[in-house]
Amino acid sequence: MEQFTVRTKGEVHVLDLTPEVRKRVVASGVREGIACVFVAHSTCAITTLEFEPGLAEEDVPNALDRLFPRHGPGLQYGHERAWHDGNGHSHVRAAFLGPSVTLPVSDGQPVLGTWQQVVLVELDPHPRERTVCLQVVGS
Amino acid sequence: MEQFTVRTKGEVHVLDLTPEVRKRVVASGVREGIACVFVAHSTCAITTLEFEPGLAEEDVPNALDRLFPRHGPGLQYGHERAWHDGNGHSHVRAAFLGPSVTLPVSDGQPVLGTWQQVVLVELDPHPRERTVCLQVVGS
Amino acid sequence: MEQFTVRTKGEVHVLDLTPEVRKRVVASGVREGIACVFVAHSTCAITTLEFEPGLAEEDVPNALDRLFPRHGPGLQYGHERAWHDGNGHSHVRAAFLGPSVTLPVSDGQPVLGTWQQVVLVELDPHPRERTVCLQVVGS
Repeated sequence: MEQFTVRTKGEVHVLDLTPEVRKRVVASGVREGIACVFVAHSTCAITTLEFEPGLAEEDVPNALDRLFPRHGPGLQYGHERAWHDGNGHSHVRAAFLGPSVTLPVSDGQPVLGTWQQVVLVELDPHPRERTVCLQVVGS
Repeated sequence: MEQFTVRTKGEVHVLDLTPEVRKRVVASGVREGIACVFVAHSTCAITTLEFEPGLAEEDVPNALDRLFPRHGPGLQYGHERAWHDGNGHSHVRAAFLGPSVTLPVSDGQPVLGTWQQVVLVELDPHPRERTVCLQVVGS
Repeated sequence: MEQFTVRTKGEVHVLDLTPEVRKRVVASGVREGIACVFVAHSTCAITTLEFEPGLAEEDVPNALDRLFPRHGPGLQYGHERAWHDGNGHSHVRAAFLGPSVTLPVSDGQPVLGTWQQVVLVELDPHPRERTVCLQVVGS
């Protein structure tokens, strides 16, 4: 399994993982198979997105804030009551977005659209160093 | 890797991919393994759903419209401001639903429930031709 | 493919599958690969979550109720009109959360964070017996 680390700025920071993923898939030598990009953290997520500032810096953060607010009238997180670490909303967001993307590998390359990138979404309020895991299977 | 194309009617069009997926998984000759159904597009998604008209034509589109509206008071997409292609909401919806479903293959068949189908969800406002990628690994 | 069953209490019941998943991944003998945890049901889902009571019993259920209500002013599910089984919202929730998590296997173990568990989310209103499928590929 391959691993690499990225530094994030805290919520909501969307980072493009595609260059690292591509480099390591190619280096794996697998020509036809499947790649799994995974984070072993419960307050961040992996998905795909057209990586451009409008979506990454405004639209995805706005949707997360609207759907899973950190604060709000009558809104209280059970996680907060017990742990007081200010990230109950981050855990819920991560469970909805999910910790991984699985994509095909073909002709030795990860299959992605021209305007489709593999992204990490930092959901924790604080800047973090995150380990991204990449596992490739096939032949 | 296998590929096939489908024609969609624009948002929100839910299409059943199960017959094509099943046929191609069986033809792959893999008896025990994993299949990844993936779209290399940033304004459409893959998930599973009981494919019946109530859910496919009403309930899933209604939930998407309610949670990720195209227009609304105070709602502005950064993606729109830069690109003016009217699909900022489509990109955000796709990032939340995700581009792939990964499912087991057992006894040479994809594992799915009786009332569970693999579906493509067209999120772009316009009719599109979409390429679906299917990669099967195992033995 | 491995299978095991769990009994749920009906919506929204979050169950930790990690001990069973870990035991069966280890027993598979695969040292480096990918594991797919999947449910062949259309009203339940698999994701990852820090499995603690605040998130599992309050915060995730509250978010599902808020985003995908069962009842509400002007809210009617097409699925209900046709099938009258009271679970239109359950199907929609399941399509958004997804039926599987795919994660790396390394050194013969599933890769997960210390505060990250693989969970089943029961979304059907009624208690159910659910079959969880686990497929591991690699070498």
